Amino acid sequence: MSGPTKEEYEPTARPFRRPIGANQSWLEEDAITVGETGEFGLIDRFIARLGPTSAILGPGDDAAVLAAPDGRVIASTDALVDGRHFRRDWSSPTDVGHKAAAQAIADIAAMGGVPTGVLVVLASPADLPIDWTDAFADGLREECTHAGTAVVGGDVVRSDVLTIAVTALGDLQGRAAVTRAGARPGDVVAIAGRLGWSAAGLAVLGRGFRSPIVIVNAHRRPEPPYSEGPQAARLGATAMCDVSDGLVQDLGHIAAASGVRIELTSADFEIADRLRDVGSALGVDPLAWVLDGGEDHALVATFPRATTLPDQWRIIGAVTDGSGIVVDGEQREPAGWDHFPRGK
Amino acid sequence: MSGPTKEEYEPTARPFRRPIGANQSWLEEDAITVGETGEFGLIDRFIARLGPTSAILGPGDDAAVLAAPDGRVIASTDALVDGRHFRRDWSSPTDVGHKAAAQAIADIAAMGGVPTGVLVVLASPADLPIDWTDAFADGLREECTHAGTAVVGGDVVRSDVLTIAVTALGDLQGRAAVTRAGARPGDVVAIAGRLGWSAAGLAVLGRGFRSPIVIVNAHRRPEPPYSEGPQAARLGATAMCDVSDGLVQDLGHIAAASGVRIELTSADFEIADRLRDVGSALGVDPLAWVLDGGEDHALVATFPRATTLPDQWRIIGAVTDGSGIVVDGEQREPAGWDHFPRGK
Repeated sequence: MSGPTKEEYEPTARPFRRPIGANQSWLEEDAITVGETGEFGLIDRFIARLGPTSAILGPGDDAAVLAAPDGRVIASTDALVDGRHFRRDWSSPTDVGHKAAAQAIADIAAMGGVPTGVLVVLASPADLPIDWTDAFADGLREECTHAGTAVVGGDVVRSDVLTIAVTALGDLQGRAAVTRAGARPGDVVAIAGRLGWSAAGLAVLGRGFRSPIVIVNAHRRPEPPYSEGPQAARLGATAMCDVSDGLVQDLGHIAAASGVRIELTSADFEIADRLRDVGSALGVDPLAWVLDGGEDHALVATFPRATTLPDQWRIIGAVTDGSGIVVDGEQREPAGWDHFPRGK
Repeated sequence: MSGPTKEEYEPTARPFRRPIGANQSWLEEDAITVGETGEFGLIDRFIARLGPTSAILGPGDDAAVLAAPDGRVIASTDALVDGRHFRRDWSSPTDVGHKAAAQAIADIAAMGGVPTGVLVVLASPADLPIDWTDAFADGLREECTHAGTAVVGGDVVRSDVLTIAVTALGDLQGRAAVTRAGARPGDVVAIAGRLGWSAAGLAVLGRGFRSPIVIVNAHRRPEPPYSEGPQAARLGATAMCDVSDGLVQDLGHIAAASGVRIELTSADFEIADRLRDVGSALGVDPLAWVLDGGEDHALVATFPRATTLPDQWRIIGAVTDGSGIVVDGEQREPAGWDHFPRGK
């Protein structure tokens, strides 16, 4: 296949296909960019860093094969674009790997499931340093391992804009999925995990600061409480989602899907001292971060009022008749994120 | 969450979450771009065009839930980047939808499976016409329907480069996966589907022509022989893959993974008259397209010699002891695609 378009036009992408036993000279030891390493070299390096998987069939063929022990599979996919969902001057490649895996796996937890495998698309500029993809793979591996899963497949393509897409698959362990549509008047609303920390970290970075590091790191590497997802399902959660766009916005989806009103009491939020300190320093009410900041991937769920909740869950409100989200008696409009704010 | 970075920086992406019952004013009837429609409007429009799914839980929650009847799930993911894997002046958005779905679903067929669901990431510039995404969704729907499946989830984000990532999931119907590693000396090599047509269509477009339309359309919309994947598995195929990068290159992966040599006889290829005609017109030996052209997503498989193959399969070679790919007695190096040719 030749012609004038070869340099700027490629055929469709292929999955991670490690040419097992193929000429390893593709893996150039002195390569410093993705372009110099070549696609197969990059895939080899990438797979080598991802570690073992418990998949029935892992990377290297047309597709991966995973166990789906309960006869169903949960599936969710998310994308991150350089300069929009992460900044390479604010987050290390390892951070980005952690974040990419975390946001996808959190969606599995939010259904009440456990992750069984992750697939990753890396669309990369040719001049991206190979050190970046190495460290990115490290972050993916570490976060997946922490969540009890692994990368089982993916795709590598070239793009002028560094873009990552992660698909997470999971298992419901025989339980019903916990959707957004089951909240009932009388239920309590409870949260597991952090709220507002990532938004505070983003605000700190946006002002040109790099500390307090624990707050900044909360933005760089969210810490979703993965195991609380299945736990909530076992406890009888009636609805659940992860907080990716902001508590008011994400609870708004539960309220809409369930046909209920959700009433929150801000005094029931435990706002950490560190968050208050950063709020004071930046002149921001930390409650705004808690209510409207996304990306911590906390889990928010509704439970029958009689449920005995373990310490990991904090009650922050109640489900009532009506619609929308009410905070301290006042109707709230979501101030979370729209990736395409209208008219922008 | 405010600050100077808001306009250029977004939090991590969320899956398709249709705010059921939410304010439908987001869906602006006079919107003409993705940016004017807004994220939720775009998701609403997109989901509405994707049609019904047989998923246990379709788009609109944190994740989709699909049946995995045989206790395993096949998973593959692929990406397409505007200007690299498609050109908006060469392919209609409907074509791109067909192609994106086809290349992902072909990977499921290449394992011997049937597709059970597709997830789609659309990373879109804000100024992309909403007509484009509408027609793209139509193409996805049509190709998925043709393959017996549907889009069950996804994600929409903003990017300066239009990028599509598709994850296809599938079921093995109780059979073993047909990998690349099972070819044995003595097996025959057989092909189902077209070879070289997409490459010929690309060559035509690259020379500035728009016809013959059947050849150009073969590039715009590949036609993988989906049902031949499970059929090959039932017939006892020992190895299989789809031809996405070029026959020699993709068979090279089977040869390497299986530790065998694959010998092809060019006289056994049935090169269509139309392909010969285009080759004559462009001064290209059509055999080059057949051997090195990708993207038709034909299925190539190895079978025990005694297998009675149905008409959809054509024998083009044999598996022998050794390594590499031999065509008409001559060792061949793959001339297919490396997305990051070394040093480029």
